[in-house]
Parts: sequence; structure tokens; C-alpha cells
Amino acid sequence: VDYANFEQARERLAPHLPPTPLVESDGLHLKLESLQPTGAFKVRPAMNSLLADLDRAKRKGVVTSSSGNFAQAVAWAATRLGVDAQIVMQRAASDFKRNRTRNFGGAVIPCDNTMEARAEATRRIVEETGRLLVHPYDSDETLAGDATVGLELLDQMDGDFCVVAPISGGGLIGGIAAAVKQRRPGCQVIGVQPEANPSMRASIDADQRTSVSPKPSVADALVVSKPGERGFRMTQQYVDDVVLVSDDQMIDAVRQLAVQAKVVAEAGGAAPVAAVQSQKVRAGDLPIVCIISGGNVEPAKFAAWLADA
Amino acid sequence: VDYANFEQARERLAPHLPPTPLVESDGLHLKLESLQPTGAFKVRPAMNSLLADLDRAKRKGVVTSSSGNFAQAVAWAATRLGVDAQIVMQRAASDFKRNRTRNFGGAVIPCDNTMEARAEATRRIVEETGRLLVHPYDSDETLAGDATVGLELLDQMDGDFCVVAPISGGGLIGGIAAAVKQRRPGCQVIGVQPEANPSMRASIDADQRTSVSPKPSVADALVVSKPGERGFRMTQQYVDDVVLVSDDQMIDAVRQLAVQAKVVAEAGGAAPVAAVQSQKVRAGDLPIVCIISGGNVEPAKFAAWLADA
Repeated sequence: VDYANFEQARERLAPHLPPTPLVESDGLHLKLESLQPTGAFKVRPAMNSLLADLDRAKRKGVVTSSSGNFAQAVAWAATRLGVDAQIVMQRAASDFKRNRTRNFGGAVIPCDNTMEARAEATRRIVEETGRLLVHPYDSDETLAGDATVGLELLDQMDGDFCVVAPISGGGLIGGIAAAVKQRRPGCQVIGVQPEANPSMRASIDADQRTSVSPKPSVADALVVSKPGERGFRMTQQYVDDVVLVSDDQMIDAVRQLAVQAKVVAEAGGAAPVAAVQSQKVRAGDLPIVCIISGGNVEPAKFAAWLADA
Repeated sequence: VDYANFEQARERLAPHLPPTPLVESDGLHLKLESLQPTGAFKVRPAMNSLLADLDRAKRKGVVTSSSGNFAQAVAWAATRLGVDAQIVMQRAASDFKRNRTRNFGGAVIPCDNTMEARAEATRRIVEETGRLLVHPYDSDETLAGDATVGLELLDQMDGDFCVVAPISGGGLIGGIAAAVKQRRPGCQVIGVQPEANPSMRASIDADQRTSVSPKPSVADALVVSKPGERGFRMTQQYVDDVVLVSDDQMIDAVRQLAVQAKVVAEAGGAAPVAAVQSQKVRAGDLPIVCIISGGNVEPAKFAAWLADA
């Protein structure tokens, strides 16, 4: 994965996705990916994947498998580019996510509730239709799309900083770290996972990609049981530390972001703030940037968390 | 009130308040004053008022009377500038607002629950201490501070647009309208008031500043019973229409902003979106900008509104 790919992704995305705001609240810099059109950073890798092979996508359509933010992102990007999109989604996915995906223009293809069934259904569609397959977090195009967050930070921050980002498959943290560290090696990059799903932490400790059975967690966007190849490699090479946060710490962070910063974040999107607040980020004198990766929290849950304040 | 004052205010504010983001959601442009350090646009007029007479403010301190967003704004700006701040606040003001004002560094001076008592307590403090008195919405400095929202929009939007802003005392709408219309006369400016407090609408209809007894409303930041002189004059001269929205329409807009746009808005801050959604804004082909003036909604209320979704 080459730095030139990151710059290329940025140029591709420029007409479609303006840089997201970086705001300050209580001494933290917040990079508001929650303000992306689908409420999460995933539009970057989705859009970059489609633009990288747009002819085929327009001719044959696109297919992906995701139950969450990437599904919505592909639906949105495809609609914007005039591409037909099918999204394979487990029947157990929430109505909230299914409806959002449909509203952004994606056709939801239901499958059984296992990762294998999802992969199998997706493979079958590709074979039968020749649709462009895009991977949610482990391809050169998704990593380069994710890296554009890092490129924007290099513009928005003067000097060195410490950036804290959530980890699911490792694409976001890997892309940001590869971008930021190559350009400003004095920066720090910290990844955050839920205690319930520490697959990257386990992989770093074992020095190889390691599977962990995810336990239930409020961070429903951070549930990949094994890091992607590229994400793992970039994290090994460029990330300074991977820390873990609890459900309660993430809920507290969601609440604080709403009440103090006026930002709607989902639990996984608030994980970096949770890590800072629970003293797990040692940034020294560097200013801290938290990547608020998404805001797609179900309204009823969000309301319940706020009511507990 | 001169255009040069607006530019001067912008220069004064630049080191303290970066331009707020303008984001797009569901076809609307949202100007996120909710992301200001105190969660509302009022830091602009507060900061501009202090910087206009900083020597005296530093020597004698500052005093203002407000129960809401202006109180927090003066406390924040004073703390940042090393100025001592007293805020006269009715005993009936909510703990939420009182605590936020204290947390930003202001000393809260309680008074009885009438506008007269508040004015009297403030006057007494000025006489006895020589503190700088800043008015929440009716002075040249507050209007110029408010106008900086308009100056930023002129940078952030290409060509003509229709801007929709809430009205309380008329400073915000007046400042924005005076800035925008002088520079781009093809723009439209629409003001929004709660049905429960239509004092500007009544004043425009009567062709003079008119008092209306405010009824209870969810928009607790939009409760001025009579427009300010400057705000009224600028609205008469530059604003195309003043429309009214109901409590239910504002609550729906708060909900939609949270769920779709991932933005925390208070009821008054969501009033422009409520006006657009209830078809009260006729913008023709112009893109619509809604000023999300603030996000200081009490968590319990916000939770209850979201839970009803």
C-alpha cells in the first residue's frame, strides 16, 4: 500500500466528500466523521472502491456484505454514482440498519446469521452476475479511502499530534497511521478496541493475525473477529499502542459527546474519547485528536443512555 | 450599524473562534453554531462585546443578565480573556444552565423571577462596581458579533442562497441579514419564531416594536417578549419573511437532526429546520442554509424526545 494511493484516493473523493470538520471540545480535537452523508467514515472506502473500477461497477453493479456502516456507505456511494448496489445482510441485522441501507438506495439481500452464510451468498452473487465485489475493510482501495482521514488531519493540525481511532478490521487505524507516520513521524497513533472484541490487541501480542470470538458489546460497529491483512500489517508497522475500553466507558463517552460537544456518536465512534477519559492514552505534550468514526446509534438506545445521565 | 463593524468583529474573533462548519444533510446546509465552545452562537456577540472594551473589562470586570446561552457565552469569553464575570440569573433558571455558566467560569448572581428584578439587580451592580455591562442582543457590538455568522456564510456558499435563522431578540437574524443582503442582494433571509412567542412577527405586522407575553414553549432560548431596537430595524430593512413554528414541529426537527444529521440541537436551534420541514420556507431554486444556533438541550428532555421517535 503506497502513499501515492492515498493521494489518488483523496483526489477521487474530493468532488464527492468535502473534508470533515475538526472541532475542539474540552481540550480534545474531534474529527467528525459522524457528519459524513451516511453518518460514518465508511463512505470514504466505499466511494474510493467504486471510483477505482467505475466502468465495471456501472456495467455490472456492485455487491458487498456488511450489516452496518459499510452497507449504508456503499448504498449511498452507488446511488450517487448511478451504480446498482446489492448488500448482503444477515437476517438478524436490525431494522434500523436495514432501513437506512434501503433509504440510501441499496437492495438488501438477506442471508442466514453466520459469517460463512454471508460470504457464501456474496460469492454466489459475484459468480452469477459479475458484479464488482468490494470488501468492507481489507483491500488496497478501502485502506486508501480510510487513509484520507489522515491526510486531512495533516492539513488541519499544525505540527505533531496524537491521533486516537477505533479499530474494527484495522482499515481505518491502518490507513490513518500509514498516512500520518510517513509524513510526520513525530505523531503518535493509538488504536482502541472494545474489551469484548480485542482481536487486534491479541494479534499484535501474538505477532500474527489472531481470531477472537467477539462477545456482545455496545460497539456494534467494532465486531470483526480477526483483523484484515492490510490493517494488521499497517498497525504492526505504524501504530504505537492498542488499548481496550469497556461498554460503560463508551456509553459515558457517548453521553459526554452529546452533552458537552453536541455531537451524536455511536458507541464505537466514541471509543477514542472513552480511551482518553479512562487515562489509557499517554500523549505527553501532544494535542489529542479523537476520530469520531460514526454516529449511527439507534435512537432508542441513545435516548436510554442519555436518560441515565 | 455599519458593515465595517462586522469586518472588525470578524478580525477580533478570529484568534478565538474559528469559523463553524457548514455541512450538508438531506439537501439542507446546516451551519453548526451548536459546535461553538459553549454550544451556541452567543460566544460571538459575547466575545466581541468584551474585546470592544477590553481595558475596562479587565480592570472592572463584566456583568450581564441572561438565563441561558448568553450567560454561558459571557462566562466562557471572560475566562478566556482573563476577565472577572458576574451573571445575573433568575432563581427559576434551571440547574443545567446555572451549572454550565459556573463551569465556564462565571459567578452566578441570583435575582427574583421577573425581567424587572433582573434588570434592577444588573443596574445596581453596574452602579456599585463600574463593571462593563454587556447586553445579550441589543448593542452595536452584539449585532456585529452576530453578523459574523453571515460573513462566514458568504465565504462558505458560492452564489445566492436562502438562509433561515431563529429569532429571539432579533440580533442574530438582523446581523446575518445586514451582512448577507448588503453583499449579495439576491440572497433570501427568513426568520423563525415559536408560535408561543411571535414578538418579531407582531412587530413587523404592526410596523413598530411590539410586546407579546411569551407563552411556555420548548424553545427556551427564544423567549424575548419584545425585539431589540437594532434587531427590529435590521429585520424590517433586510429580512424577507418571519414565519412561526409549533413546539411539535421543533421537537420533530430536533429528532431528525439527531437521527439523520448526527447533530445535537436545542429546540430553538432546530426551529429553522422545523420551518423548512413544515413547508413555511419558500426558497425557490436557492439552496437553503439553516442556522443551528445552539445545542444546549437538557439531556433528560432530549432523551425523552428521542425515545418518542
